[in-house]
Amino acid sequence: MSYSEYLTQTQQIADIHHSIAVLSWDKEVYLPVKGAASRSRQIATLSGVAHDMSTSDSYGDLLRSLAEDDSLSEVERRNIALSLRNYNIATRFSREFVEKKSAIVSASFHAWLEGREQQDFHVFKPHLEKIVELSREESEIIGYSDHPYDALLDIYEKDLTVKRLEEVFGGLKPELHDIIHQIRGAEQVSHDCLAGKYSTSVQMDYGEKILRAMGYDFDAGRQDLAAHPFSISFGPGDQRVTTRVDESDFSYMLWSTIHEGGHALYEQGLPADQYGLPCGSAISLGIHESQSRLWENHVGRNLDFWTSQYHEMQRTFPHLQSVSLEDYYRAINRISPGKIRTEADELHYHYHVMIRYEIERDLISGDLSVDEVNDRWRADYRDALGITIDHDTEGILQDIHWSHGSIGYFPTYTLGSLYAAQFYDQAQEDLDDLPAQLRSGDTSQLLTWLRSHIHVHGQLYDAEELCERITGKTLDPAHFISYARQKWSDIYGIAL
Amino acid sequence: MSYSEYLTQTQQIADIHHSIAVLSWDKEVYLPVKGAASRSRQIATLSGVAHDMSTSDSYGDLLRSLAEDDSLSEVERRNIALSLRNYNIATRFSREFVEKKSAIVSASFHAWLEGREQQDFHVFKPHLEKIVELSREESEIIGYSDHPYDALLDIYEKDLTVKRLEEVFGGLKPELHDIIHQIRGAEQVSHDCLAGKYSTSVQMDYGEKILRAMGYDFDAGRQDLAAHPFSISFGPGDQRVTTRVDESDFSYMLWSTIHEGGHALYEQGLPADQYGLPCGSAISLGIHESQSRLWENHVGRNLDFWTSQYHEMQRTFPHLQSVSLEDYYRAINRISPGKIRTEADELHYHYHVMIRYEIERDLISGDLSVDEVNDRWRADYRDALGITIDHDTEGILQDIHWSHGSIGYFPTYTLGSLYAAQFYDQAQEDLDDLPAQLRSGDTSQLLTWLRSHIHVHGQLYDAEELCERITGKTLDPAHFISYARQKWSDIYGIAL
Repeated sequence: MSYSEYLTQTQQIADIHHSIAVLSWDKEVYLPVKGAASRSRQIATLSGVAHDMSTSDSYGDLLRSLAEDDSLSEVERRNIALSLRNYNIATRFSREFVEKKSAIVSASFHAWLEGREQQDFHVFKPHLEKIVELSREESEIIGYSDHPYDALLDIYEKDLTVKRLEEVFGGLKPELHDIIHQIRGAEQVSHDCLAGKYSTSVQMDYGEKILRAMGYDFDAGRQDLAAHPFSISFGPGDQRVTTRVDESDFSYMLWSTIHEGGHALYEQGLPADQYGLPCGSAISLGIHESQSRLWENHVGRNLDFWTSQYHEMQRTFPHLQSVSLEDYYRAINRISPGKIRTEADELHYHYHVMIRYEIERDLISGDLSVDEVNDRWRADYRDALGITIDHDTEGILQDIHWSHGSIGYFPTYTLGSLYAAQFYDQAQEDLDDLPAQLRSGDTSQLLTWLRSHIHVHGQLYDAEELCERITGKTLDPAHFISYARQKWSDIYGIAL
Repeated sequence: MSYSEYLTQTQQIADIHHSIAVLSWDKEVYLPVKGAASRSRQIATLSGVAHDMSTSDSYGDLLRSLAEDDSLSEVERRNIALSLRNYNIATRFSREFVEKKSAIVSASFHAWLEGREQQDFHVFKPHLEKIVELSREESEIIGYSDHPYDALLDIYEKDLTVKRLEEVFGGLKPELHDIIHQIRGAEQVSHDCLAGKYSTSVQMDYGEKILRAMGYDFDAGRQDLAAHPFSISFGPGDQRVTTRVDESDFSYMLWSTIHEGGHALYEQGLPADQYGLPCGSAISLGIHESQSRLWENHVGRNLDFWTSQYHEMQRTFPHLQSVSLEDYYRAINRISPGKIRTEADELHYHYHVMIRYEIERDLISGDLSVDEVNDRWRADYRDALGITIDHDTEGILQDIHWSHGSIGYFPTYTLGSLYAAQFYDQAQEDLDDLPAQLRSGDTSQLLTWLRSHIHVHGQLYDAEELCERITGKTLDPAHFISYARQKWSDIYGIAL
């Protein structure tokens, strides 16, 4: 049993996962309608092959034997430890459970689509009941110390717990409430100046320019159109993004491009020599999201960045020629409550996440039943955002996650924003006048900083451990709060 | 051991082959340059998985046991017999041989590209030596009765032998020679009227129209741009084509679109309920090619067809507005010798194939050495076509096949044309005034005829057996010859 045998097997498993990624990408961007059943078969078969390979007895023996090998380097030991951890979790799930989950999720997804069509949660409700039951079962199989939701959080953000999350959200919530409350009392900002009609090809071309401005390497990726934007990695040298275009509102293209570009830059920066191994893979969803949010919000909604980019923006979208840079900047940073998470501003966004988190936590603990969940959703939106939900498609049916069987995922979105603010503060400290660099259109030093401090390590460190190595402390929402107070003081002309 | 277990295993193997097809398609049309190494890994890993599954002892036991099962239907027995045949051939190859072949082919392909760059066969020659040696080894492993080349022919065209091929080519060659000789003496046809510059997007849009006119289903496929056109199946409901565009000559787009569309129509017509099984798969390369040639030549170069299509053609390519339908028809059917197989006319094409066939046959028998092969190539082109090869890229390096390790493939191109003529004659006999249907723009009855007589059977019958069932006799070049005599008599105004 040798490390090279571990490399061979683990990288072959990665090849299969990346093959599934190619099939999934094509499914979202190019698959003809009648090809759906064939594609599902292919993905299911490859998933089964990958599962068999990554849970085989021989692979387990190999990992256990290498876990005892003192001659390995630090990176090698880390790879083995994490692969063994993944193996131990994966092998706890029986094939019956995996197949049951797959069947429930598949039916659930179709019911969710149907429910959205009919704008009625009742279509989806019996499926959500099964999903919650399944997730509770999953939590028991994985195991936890304190709260059953901890086991689900751990799937997306290793070692994250309800306890830690409530510390973090507890630090965020009152401050956020105060900032938003004060903004509500100030003179409001309009974003009417952004409206304008532009073709898909004009918008896609601009998306390509903004990705190049971020340092995205088009020799190692490409951009395609999709109904739901995402980024996806096919292994070293191929990290693709997709973009959503609304011809009457370029915001969808702009923010989805920058956001997905940020994800893709992380993947483009992972060490290729650790291909397919934990140390060649992203740490967690929270850290992944920190990269997309850093680019989307700290760079993409930054006045210095637009100082260099706005001329090209006006050339592409000529109606902006009568809009000053300052008005544009204020418009893209307007704060206003809304019903839809993916369209929310940087501040209200976290209410959408925290509402979902508390609902999920209570569903899993049993403190909330699926019978009560829609009333709870509507009440939370009314209480937290002052918003009345008219129908379920703009309410509890707006997100795909539950229909996919993903419970425990939402909190990582807010963690991403908080990490982003903390990393960006540190980058500003480490780099020589980052604002001036952005004003001159140079994002390269920032990207190099992200590469060397975050991307290059893969999973060598856990999320909070990496955060501490870079910034001197674990995740602390104070960075996001001070960023927010300063930014929106300027925008709304108030003292936050 | 049951037939349903056979279905599960065989269809999962098909899923993996179709997954490889998706990865390969993407590689040709969308892969960013830096993603090549990752993609090669993925394809190699999936190929290994498919190989292991299709050569496993347990799969062999299953096939052997089902081969004794008298309770199976005709179709089921045929599936088992062919799967067992494939299994027996595949298991004759050791993993070492497969890996050796893969390494030789990979190096050989790069040397071929390099040789084309330098226009010099010497770069490729040592690799061709290895390919020939490998093919002779492969022939011994597969086994044969008469000629070692028979084993290689069998890979692409089941049961085809040198003996049968020389019968067929023997019937073709003197007649072809006579027709071409007489055309050379007639007044020549010009194709200058076809020249014109048109953008890629205009040409791709027209390609889509012509595919629709053929009955290609865009809900079960799509058309993309590629340097080398091909068609590819991803399983039921997803048969894609790619098209080559030269902005200064629409012929590349037009003929590659119709040709690949013909291949894709065959795949779209295979029975989905036999997915992944022999009776759900194409019979052979010769029959596959018969479908592309039938559409390309018998429909696509047919005056009746263009009677209905020419108006739209002129609308899209306005310089044709001053060209009469008859002149256009003559131009697209001009007979003139050339150096490049893929650009050859319908008649000279077969010289290109027969030259390659005789060279391959003699390389494999040992009657020709790789040292002599380029001189032989040049001499054959001089003798048969009166053409001087100036450099090797337009000579012996023009085709990719040998660099891929494919020896025995070329003859199927000519078989395809001969089958096409024989099938088309029968369709004309069976259908009510097919020429009138084409003149009215209706290809649907022809497609239905191809579906019900050829596509629907998959591999239920062998190639010549199918031919006999449909036309009352095995493959007979007389159909092609009489088609050619009649067509070019009209075009050149001579009595052929």
